Amino acid sequence: MLTFSSHFSQKLPYQDKNLLNEMLESLQKEMDGDEVGYYKLPQSSKKLLQELKPMDIDRFSQVVVVGIGGSSLGIKAINSILKPITKDAKEMIFFENSDPLTISENISKIDKDRACFFIVSKSGSTIETTSIFKTLIKHFSLELDNATNIFAITDKDSYLSKFATFHNIKEFNIPHNVGGRFSVLSAVGIVPLYIAGYDVEAILEGAAEFEMSFFNGHENHLLEKANYIYANSKKENINVVFSYADRLENFTKWYVQLWGESLGKLDRDKNHVGLTPIGLIGAVDQHSFLQLIIEGPNDKSITFINIEDFKNPLEIPDISLHGIEQTDFINKQSFNKLINEQCKATMQSVRQSGVSSDIITLDEISEKNIGAMIIYYELLTSLIGKVLHINTYNQPGVELGKQILYKNLGNK
Amino acid sequence: MLTFSSHFSQKLPYQDKNLLNEMLESLQKEMDGDEVGYYKLPQSSKKLLQELKPMDIDRFSQVVVVGIGGSSLGIKAINSILKPITKDAKEMIFFENSDPLTISENISKIDKDRACFFIVSKSGSTIETTSIFKTLIKHFSLELDNATNIFAITDKDSYLSKFATFHNIKEFNIPHNVGGRFSVLSAVGIVPLYIAGYDVEAILEGAAEFEMSFFNGHENHLLEKANYIYANSKKENINVVFSYADRLENFTKWYVQLWGESLGKLDRDKNHVGLTPIGLIGAVDQHSFLQLIIEGPNDKSITFINIEDFKNPLEIPDISLHGIEQTDFINKQSFNKLINEQCKATMQSVRQSGVSSDIITLDEISEKNIGAMIIYYELLTSLIGKVLHINTYNQPGVELGKQILYKNLGNK
Repeated sequence: MLTFSSHFSQKLPYQDKNLLNEMLESLQKEMDGDEVGYYKLPQSSKKLLQELKPMDIDRFSQVVVVGIGGSSLGIKAINSILKPITKDAKEMIFFENSDPLTISENISKIDKDRACFFIVSKSGSTIETTSIFKTLIKHFSLELDNATNIFAITDKDSYLSKFATFHNIKEFNIPHNVGGRFSVLSAVGIVPLYIAGYDVEAILEGAAEFEMSFFNGHENHLLEKANYIYANSKKENINVVFSYADRLENFTKWYVQLWGESLGKLDRDKNHVGLTPIGLIGAVDQHSFLQLIIEGPNDKSITFINIEDFKNPLEIPDISLHGIEQTDFINKQSFNKLINEQCKATMQSVRQSGVSSDIITLDEISEKNIGAMIIYYELLTSLIGKVLHINTYNQPGVELGKQILYKNLGNK
Repeated sequence: MLTFSSHFSQKLPYQDKNLLNEMLESLQKEMDGDEVGYYKLPQSSKKLLQELKPMDIDRFSQVVVVGIGGSSLGIKAINSILKPITKDAKEMIFFENSDPLTISENISKIDKDRACFFIVSKSGSTIETTSIFKTLIKHFSLELDNATNIFAITDKDSYLSKFATFHNIKEFNIPHNVGGRFSVLSAVGIVPLYIAGYDVEAILEGAAEFEMSFFNGHENHLLEKANYIYANSKKENINVVFSYADRLENFTKWYVQLWGESLGKLDRDKNHVGLTPIGLIGAVDQHSFLQLIIEGPNDKSITFINIEDFKNPLEIPDISLHGIEQTDFINKQSFNKLINEQCKATMQSVRQSGVSSDIITLDEISEKNIGAMIIYYELLTSLIGKVLHINTYNQPGVELGKQILYKNLGNK
């Protein structure tokens, strides 16, 4: 279960009922239409399970994922969060970057006979992904024809789809109307995570429940938050997600892509608009970024995320160290309590300093909670995009760099 | 060797010779004084080597570091970067956060009989550090009196120093006038990295050479950059370090602390000032944050970092895949070339979009280069702090949260 509360510092008409209703209706309309497909994934991806359940997945002990951006960030986020609560979760190895040192190191971790290989790309022409895939083919002498250890996840009729059909390689499709950064609940995330041993059905269920609750009007805090962030976007143009759990670091990276690529845009009047996303981890970044939040420019809003119950009993031993007795007051408390008290204290200090904040509390680490967190952030992003009057779902700004690269490397 | 070039978008008098000279002189004065001690570390830390060289360090195969913020970030940065070029570098295990899942997982990695334990804290009263240290004492039944596998790194006469003296534990001191985030070239970084097998002498040498070159007036680009960033700090108030190498991720985290804690301050007129630091990794974040840089608000300056020669020959195989032939143009090129061409293309696209940028190129991964990078960023931070008229070296904003925590947990 997720609980939400907020302490926004500006008094603004962000709770205007009519405005909130309009926002909800406009999202409802988008959901009912055909242009933006991610809304339907929590329901439609359940069909994938019928395909997956008959598969013999026990022959694999490693799941290798070759993909970058939206084709890896969401999978990594879920893998990191659910690993501690998932018995016998398989090792997942991610190939993303064109960094030769990482590629070489990752290759050395693979046991070819126990690994399955996922090639994930909407178009199939992502240069990092195809280059790494070729490297794996060569290094492990992978047989392509009728391969049962290679899977493609791509758009129907894409370049990668043609490749898969040609070699009779099993293929899973991403709906055309689902963009990369909104695709984690499609085959992109569901299939590799299922094979790695995760309960993807519960992830989808958590997402579906939260989404239904939202569209039934029971999550108005989300509309208020979107509206507040929009109304303050000129002044508080940086949004920080401050997660009090190491295993949420990949989730914050997923959020940074979602937010950055979706909301950094030219609006309908060709103005440069956007909100800058930053991911932090508590309590570590209390010793790094917090000073800037408290005393730096008042240009940030902070979203704290914490986990009430880590299901880990580790306690600070009742030991008194000569010279350092002053920290004995925390003895016999659990680290679970310590990290949550640190979150609470930081939140209070942020609030007292006049910085806007809100908090999302997960009662525990669970599949349903992470499913709900994903759809929560996707809906929030769509809502802000709507009021900013931008196209939330494209990313025209990255094309120029690609063209220059292709030109510099001599491709026509 | 490092090379530098810049493409700042605003025409400003940031190259004014008199102004630059004033800045250099004011830093020279600070260096000659006693208040700010980090300037002297590249020279003074060499003395540590005389203490370290007679030690029998081969009895350790793991180096465990318990520390947070400035007591871990710099060590992690150097360890990540130099590992691939350091034969027989020992495993380093970092305990930072109060997250119970990470602590439990890290404990399971330790081989008590082959590990040495570093407790790193300027004051010795950092709550995460003392709590984790107690947990290790209990879990491994560590003997404290006359321990030869435990080392303390702390200020002279600190709480931790008292503890070490009491138990006759070997202690290394941080100069009083060196703040945590400027301490990586003191015992904080030098001692654990030496024991882990790194050539710390070369790191110090690289730092010393760059620093001397700067104070001899041969690195004016640094003065110009500081001045440019300051002069534009109202408009371009976010500075992004975009590193094209996975192993620089921890370096960017070190930079975020250095920049965030040093420059996010109340100035002499009690104005909230500061520049927000963001660390990115290329090419990965071309698929995440780049869209926001190109089409979002023009509130960022970007510093690219790349490595000319990764000393890794991995090539993209000359394989043509049916359907995906369009990326064949990169076949037979090295990944080393690909990632650098991606950096170059992104830089060009950023420049064409009117965003200020500069680039630092490392000719290779080397101890001297990382030493130079560290002092480069420390000097840059000091310079910007000077012109912003703030105290670069304190962090009063984090005290409130600590007080609230202590109060909430019932400590007087």
